[in-house]
Amino acid sequence: MSEKLYHGAAYYPELWTEDVIEQDIKLMLETGINVVRIGEFAWSTMEPIEDQINLSFFKVIVNKLYEHGIETIFCTPTPTPPIWFTYKHPERMYVDRDGRTMGHGSRQHACTNNHYFRERAAIITEHIVQTLGNHPGIIGWQIDNEFKCHVSECMCETCKSLWHEWLKNRYKTIENLNEAWGTHIWSEYYHHFEQVPQPGPAPFLHNSSLNTMYKIFSMEKIAEFSDQQAEVIRTYSSAPITHNSSIAFSVDNERLFKNLDFASFDTYASIENFSAYLINCDLWRNFKKGKEFWIMETSTSFAASLESCASPHPNGYLKAEAAAAYALGAEGFCYWLWRQQRTGCEQPHSSVISAWGKPTVGYKNVIEVEHMRKEFEPIILSTKPVQADLAITYSDRAKVFLATEPHKGLNHRGLVTNYYERILSMGIHRDVIPEGASFEGYKVVLTPFIHFLSDDYLIRGKHFVENGGIWIVGPLTGGRTEEHTIHTDRALGELEKLAGVKVLFTYPMDQSGTIGSAFGCSAPLGLWSTVFEYSEEHSVGTITEGLSAGKSFLTEHSLGKGKIVMLGAMPIGREGDVLLKRMIDHYSILAEVNQRTDVTPGTIVAPRENDHSIIWFMINMDGNGGSVTIPFKGYDIKNKIEIESGKLEIGPFECKMVEFQK
Amino acid sequence: MSEKLYHGAAYYPELWTEDVIEQDIKLMLETGINVVRIGEFAWSTMEPIEDQINLSFFKVIVNKLYEHGIETIFCTPTPTPPIWFTYKHPERMYVDRDGRTMGHGSRQHACTNNHYFRERAAIITEHIVQTLGNHPGIIGWQIDNEFKCHVSECMCETCKSLWHEWLKNRYKTIENLNEAWGTHIWSEYYHHFEQVPQPGPAPFLHNSSLNTMYKIFSMEKIAEFSDQQAEVIRTYSSAPITHNSSIAFSVDNERLFKNLDFASFDTYASIENFSAYLINCDLWRNFKKGKEFWIMETSTSFAASLESCASPHPNGYLKAEAAAAYALGAEGFCYWLWRQQRTGCEQPHSSVISAWGKPTVGYKNVIEVEHMRKEFEPIILSTKPVQADLAITYSDRAKVFLATEPHKGLNHRGLVTNYYERILSMGIHRDVIPEGASFEGYKVVLTPFIHFLSDDYLIRGKHFVENGGIWIVGPLTGGRTEEHTIHTDRALGELEKLAGVKVLFTYPMDQSGTIGSAFGCSAPLGLWSTVFEYSEEHSVGTITEGLSAGKSFLTEHSLGKGKIVMLGAMPIGREGDVLLKRMIDHYSILAEVNQRTDVTPGTIVAPRENDHSIIWFMINMDGNGGSVTIPFKGYDIKNKIEIESGKLEIGPFECKMVEFQK
Amino acid sequence: MSEKLYHGAAYYPELWTEDVIEQDIKLMLETGINVVRIGEFAWSTMEPIEDQINLSFFKVIVNKLYEHGIETIFCTPTPTPPIWFTYKHPERMYVDRDGRTMGHGSRQHACTNNHYFRERAAIITEHIVQTLGNHPGIIGWQIDNEFKCHVSECMCETCKSLWHEWLKNRYKTIENLNEAWGTHIWSEYYHHFEQVPQPGPAPFLHNSSLNTMYKIFSMEKIAEFSDQQAEVIRTYSSAPITHNSSIAFSVDNERLFKNLDFASFDTYASIENFSAYLINCDLWRNFKKGKEFWIMETSTSFAASLESCASPHPNGYLKAEAAAAYALGAEGFCYWLWRQQRTGCEQPHSSVISAWGKPTVGYKNVIEVEHMRKEFEPIILSTKPVQADLAITYSDRAKVFLATEPHKGLNHRGLVTNYYERILSMGIHRDVIPEGASFEGYKVVLTPFIHFLSDDYLIRGKHFVENGGIWIVGPLTGGRTEEHTIHTDRALGELEKLAGVKVLFTYPMDQSGTIGSAFGCSAPLGLWSTVFEYSEEHSVGTITEGLSAGKSFLTEHSLGKGKIVMLGAMPIGREGDVLLKRMIDHYSILAEVNQRTDVTPGTIVAPRENDHSIIWFMINMDGNGGSVTIPFKGYDIKNKIEIESGKLEIGPFECKMVEFQK
Repeated sequence: MSEKLYHGAAYYPELWTEDVIEQDIKLMLETGINVVRIGEFAWSTMEPIEDQINLSFFKVIVNKLYEHGIETIFCTPTPTPPIWFTYKHPERMYVDRDGRTMGHGSRQHACTNNHYFRERAAIITEHIVQTLGNHPGIIGWQIDNEFKCHVSECMCETCKSLWHEWLKNRYKTIENLNEAWGTHIWSEYYHHFEQVPQPGPAPFLHNSSLNTMYKIFSMEKIAEFSDQQAEVIRTYSSAPITHNSSIAFSVDNERLFKNLDFASFDTYASIENFSAYLINCDLWRNFKKGKEFWIMETSTSFAASLESCASPHPNGYLKAEAAAAYALGAEGFCYWLWRQQRTGCEQPHSSVISAWGKPTVGYKNVIEVEHMRKEFEPIILSTKPVQADLAITYSDRAKVFLATEPHKGLNHRGLVTNYYERILSMGIHRDVIPEGASFEGYKVVLTPFIHFLSDDYLIRGKHFVENGGIWIVGPLTGGRTEEHTIHTDRALGELEKLAGVKVLFTYPMDQSGTIGSAFGCSAPLGLWSTVFEYSEEHSVGTITEGLSAGKSFLTEHSLGKGKIVMLGAMPIGREGDVLLKRMIDHYSILAEVNQRTDVTPGTIVAPRENDHSIIWFMINMDGNGGSVTIPFKGYDIKNKIEIESGKLEIGPFECKMVEFQK
Repeated sequence: MSEKLYHGAAYYPELWTEDVIEQDIKLMLETGINVVRIGEFAWSTMEPIEDQINLSFFKVIVNKLYEHGIETIFCTPTPTPPIWFTYKHPERMYVDRDGRTMGHGSRQHACTNNHYFRERAAIITEHIVQTLGNHPGIIGWQIDNEFKCHVSECMCETCKSLWHEWLKNRYKTIENLNEAWGTHIWSEYYHHFEQVPQPGPAPFLHNSSLNTMYKIFSMEKIAEFSDQQAEVIRTYSSAPITHNSSIAFSVDNERLFKNLDFASFDTYASIENFSAYLINCDLWRNFKKGKEFWIMETSTSFAASLESCASPHPNGYLKAEAAAAYALGAEGFCYWLWRQQRTGCEQPHSSVISAWGKPTVGYKNVIEVEHMRKEFEPIILSTKPVQADLAITYSDRAKVFLATEPHKGLNHRGLVTNYYERILSMGIHRDVIPEGASFEGYKVVLTPFIHFLSDDYLIRGKHFVENGGIWIVGPLTGGRTEEHTIHTDRALGELEKLAGVKVLFTYPMDQSGTIGSAFGCSAPLGLWSTVFEYSEEHSVGTITEGLSAGKSFLTEHSLGKGKIVMLGAMPIGREGDVLLKRMIDHYSILAEVNQRTDVTPGTIVAPRENDHSIIWFMINMDGNGGSVTIPFKGYDIKNKIEIESGKLEIGPFECKMVEFQK
Repeated sequence: MSEKLYHGAAYYPELWTEDVIEQDIKLMLETGINVVRIGEFAWSTMEPIEDQINLSFFKVIVNKLYEHGIETIFCTPTPTPPIWFTYKHPERMYVDRDGRTMGHGSRQHACTNNHYFRERAAIITEHIVQTLGNHPGIIGWQIDNEFKCHVSECMCETCKSLWHEWLKNRYKTIENLNEAWGTHIWSEYYHHFEQVPQPGPAPFLHNSSLNTMYKIFSMEKIAEFSDQQAEVIRTYSSAPITHNSSIAFSVDNERLFKNLDFASFDTYASIENFSAYLINCDLWRNFKKGKEFWIMETSTSFAASLESCASPHPNGYLKAEAAAAYALGAEGFCYWLWRQQRTGCEQPHSSVISAWGKPTVGYKNVIEVEHMRKEFEPIILSTKPVQADLAITYSDRAKVFLATEPHKGLNHRGLVTNYYERILSMGIHRDVIPEGASFEGYKVVLTPFIHFLSDDYLIRGKHFVENGGIWIVGPLTGGRTEEHTIHTDRALGELEKLAGVKVLFTYPMDQSGTIGSAFGCSAPLGLWSTVFEYSEEHSVGTITEGLSAGKSFLTEHSLGKGKIVMLGAMPIGREGDVLLKRMIDHYSILAEVNQRTDVTPGTIVAPRENDHSIIWFMINMDGNGGSVTIPFKGYDIKNKIEIESGKLEIGPFECKMVEFQK
């Protein structure tokens, strides 16, 4: 458990004069900023000329901050190699799908797989850690910044040869690859690995296996870079290491965090998307289970760049965000950024302090956060989040499969967030867990939108069910192999056997007039769907209209002490929402999901506990206020009064804490 | 006349194991598939290494199929040259308008004008035909597959020098070209042919002549390739040759089919676009007049690729499609594809059998088609389509002119299909005829949306009219020369003289508040329009409002025994629809168009005949059912009963056949 | 003052035969065309082969025209270098942002900064001027044609080195540049000027300073080219020089016209956008104050190219356009083009005469213009436009800043035109003045949408106010420095001090629920906004709802005899329109703006004067007619009658002239 709740901001002292820095520290103390994030783009300051590395400026800054009680997360500056690295070296630069080579300027312009880039990145990081590794003010490290946020798969010559090497490792022989990808289709067939192209310009789509594997290759390579950086850091420092990531980036977050010490994310969701904010908290808590996560970047009011801007947060929302984060497992809540950029391309972005050193529109909200943080700190530090009964699997590899095969513009993130939102709005406390996470401790696991299910996942699912769990699979799950090919034994391969169903066929149900019926309600069915043979034993949801009338779209199969539920199609529209919620409700009751309240949508209950009590953090996120039924007598921590069971009102953006004795 | 009605599917045995192939053949027999199309993408299987050609696998397959009564259309595999052709040979690849060179993967990645491509294509085709040319199972050949479906005009260096050669042949001297294209405009002027650019990146639009000629060059070149392939095939085989084309591709279908033996097309229109399906039948019947055409590809239920999918057909529609095809002159009706692809980029596309060997959602519709085919076969084989009284000219070269000069997003295919739909919905039996087709046998010919009319076409039109035909010209017809320049003698050149009109000026009428009146009704006028001087003698339609009030938009001129009708503008909206139909109605009556019924829209009557009788195939296409008045006593072939004249109901997707004695 | 009102057309005799030219001259005389513009794309005719220059054709033409009383504006042919310049010289061609090199064909394909281009341009221009410089038929010169209309900033290697040179001149040392642009952000930092990239492909946005400076560099370079051409012309000719420009092009018009003799523009606004037409007249009158401007190109009916077309003008609109132009200060009103193009890519564009030598749809409107011109000529020639009391500053450099930083799709031209439209519709006679223009003679100056205000402008503003002017600044004005960085002393730098306000913060107000109240009405506020501290002394408009409730968005500060009004946000919607108009009304009354009438929207009053009288030109632009109150007894020039004060009706597209004695 942590010793502190952190309230922080990204800080770029290398861009400002000494005077301004003095003023900044003074203002930070006033604002309650107790941690800053430093260094992420400062390579040119640290090493203006190749091999002339001087970190004294940063050492002074870290010292000065520390003397004022402000701790530092230090970042490696690798997202922005200096001009000496890039000038006249197009071969070191990122190349996009159209073959355009990036120039200097902006960020992420270098290919992170370039050998010389890796070498120079190791050197600068080594120097940083040698210099600052044992500084008491350094409480953590951040590697690079937002990997693959502006770029995705690089198509340069270095990547081409690494791709061939990667394929060689994966497939051993080219015949294995040919067989796995079925390359006699369209005469793609290769004689040696060097012939396998990168998925660049082509008259029509590339082979799905090629596309998917190139993305996975790219995700593994960026994680490998992260691993290498972490290794350098660990040689000289014992402070924990993280990276500030997002599900919006082209990375496999589960793999990325495997070799890091704690998990962080950046988010700029606006109030309309508060569920997109919360899913991050519920997911990042589980990348390093049992370890607090950080929100490394969020705006004080609105995100903006030269070419776009969001609307400012309404007053109160920032505090609700921070409260939700801390309650759901965050140790740190940090802004991007402290002082508005004077130059560059993010000048309009909101901050704590303007470029001219004055409070911004979000400033008073930052002060509110700080008051709340102080109030929360002892309570949060003495508790931990209650384990949820229900979990949804999230997979960045599934995101890749859907990017290769979006059927009709499907967006993985949108699908998942939408699905998550339903469970959130039902008042069910939930975990969003990475693909490789254990199912231990859960009563219900949901696995939607995962084209390919690994053998390992299937085994975990099977054991989970045999031991009494309810596993709800689909829609859009299991229909592809690891290689992004179609199963040839049966539609869903091993999953189909396990689930005790017989799939008849699959097809796109949208606009096909298909109606499904289950749990006493009916709804149109959509998405690419799997139709099951009707069986009295297994069928829970029946198709009543459309091409597959009489067949099943929802089945249930008992296995050991539990059940596998297969959802073959997506109930859509308002009625679909009702049907899906009834399904979740039904199985939650059946599985005896207890971590659930009747909180009204727009407000959340985040339960935390310690040995002797449970504390509910009730936070209104949508600004409309809400209510929840208090089941037993409890203790209102803020008002220091006992409260009776019954309906409790939560005001707009209000946060209430009620403690229940165990 | 044919000896068989074919019911077929595309088949890719090279992608499957022997076991699966055995199963496939068994299932084909159950399904009634009596022809398969093989080989189109299999070059890497046939010639995995340059010059190591082995066709034994395909020989075995063709044999095996033949032994089971399944015949084969064999395809040349040229859309997908193997890796030995493309690897490290960017100079052989297709280059798009932006200068991007295609890589291996996908299809049509090679430049079909590349010399070495032509050489290797001839070699592989020669081997195939030597091996299989006399096999009794081979009933036909398909050259390549869907020429120019994913690509259009290649911009590579080979094409550049062929372009210069082509220009030299066409214009003889550069001065002729300069004069024809008016190249002193914008100082384009060339001193020698090598200086004429390909229409690649430029700050604004290229000269219309350059653009149009480059497209025509490209269309001639792909037809030349087809000719060369046909020549190779004919050296060793007497089986007829085709290509599976479409009006959606960048080809001149009339020119392409000139040197082929029968015409085929691929179509994936969904039920909402059934008129787009039917226009194909009415057009393809006329590319090789008197010879049955084939539908070489259509989906059993829905078209799909990784990135898109259509909705599945409603039950019954597939049978209606097949019935309409056979009735309108098809000999073969084939699916793409037999067995769902395991890999590649068309994995989700519908098929007869799934990748795991089971019936798909369309399977039972395929069975229905087969029942219908058997019932139809003797009737179809003993009759032929009745010659229509009315014809619409279709021109892929006109498509090129409109692509160069779309005015405001005009789409040739959309315009033509929309125009065709009106005639279809009026119950008029019709031919859609290529630009070079004879007008012999018609009473009414319509020539809409053809910017340039050739001298030859004008002469045919003149003779047709002199001999009593009614020729309805326009809108958007005749205003450009062969070189895509503007006439300088009069607005429409020779046509204007022939039509006995005086054009005042042309301009875009959309949103200009112009109203036209004719045949007792009024409608807004749109499209780029030609305004005629009013003359009591010729004016049929008068402009009543707008800039040209008092002038004519519709004229009629008697010539010999017939009439030329000039339609200068497009009546638009609901009222425009009425006006156009009244015009067609008026001239159809005047010309004594007899091949016409009162069939309700959404249902068609396809008349066929032999020496002693006429048979009406009445097919409901829209799923709503319809009716038609039976004029005389007839014989209901299906129910084997005589029926009286009077109204006959056709059920949803039903097909009725009534025979009338001559 | 002029001696003639010109009525002209662009003419391309090099594209036509002698016969056609004879016919053209005859028709010009019939139509009243008294000036033609010749030569702009004719380089290949003048110099078909490098160094073989022959201008005899043009000499003959100019002679022949002159003999018939038609004068000539001769153009240099530099927008279209011939094939000998471009063929096999990709290094001379324009390169776009994606790195695509333009090919020959179309226009503006050459890089105008290429050294050899400049050399050849000087040579051809020198020959032209040597040949025709003293010809009495030549009344003026046009340099090139529509600079930067199809292209913007070139990215070629020549431009790269000129860019470095330009930077060196501007910043002297690289450290100055680094400091000015704050290049330690994202490690952009440069060691020497050669390292500064052009703003080509990058993963995300470039530094705002880099982007803005590259655009300014490009605008300066094209003006430099214009200067060089003008210098060549002046060596041999004393006829005045112009360029036909537009605010839609990537040029700095103020800088461009600095070294030219008179200002011209091209416009193709349709009737719906008549205010976009008028803003040009009000702006171009002020590029060379006191000197008549020309409309060098406008359509007789509709603009069109192969791929687009506008709707034709309604009858009467062309005459209204010409009347407004002459009344507002034009000396020439010219069409593009005389005879429809036979070839090229602008074939469908409207003209006076069709390609086949007949009157077009716009012909009779041209005749109307000529009647009006004759009627106008003596009146216009004996008067000059009355100086307006109110001016709006227009800046092409502001356009650049907004292109770099559009916040959320903001378009400078749209913003400015919209703002102008309000003043127009209030019946206020107005000037639109370039950034560098004197404020002398005005009572109210408005400065909206100018991110950066120069010191010079601020000084002029200060003096203007001190001497009694009312200066209304904003919205979106003053928040950026010359280098496109953010001020660090205060939000608006010096302006803030001058305006006596304290800016709290800035943020995007759209959709933030902010309401502002002023002058007795309330409206939602939008755009990127500046919020002022409330002060009883200064606040005129208060924010009543939203994040900044209680603060000010509109302030007033007395300085000397005048006032600075700061408008921090944009009142939006219908209510915003009311609020803005009340603000303008309020300050116009306060400043005693007299040049104002109660003319109804859609009709304008253009006042002209001489020593003894004022003449109102009242012109209806929208085709709906209108009215205006005549304040004193006047004289109706057309009808030659005295008219009493009171309401005067103006018919659709009518133009009335009323003379008032001074």
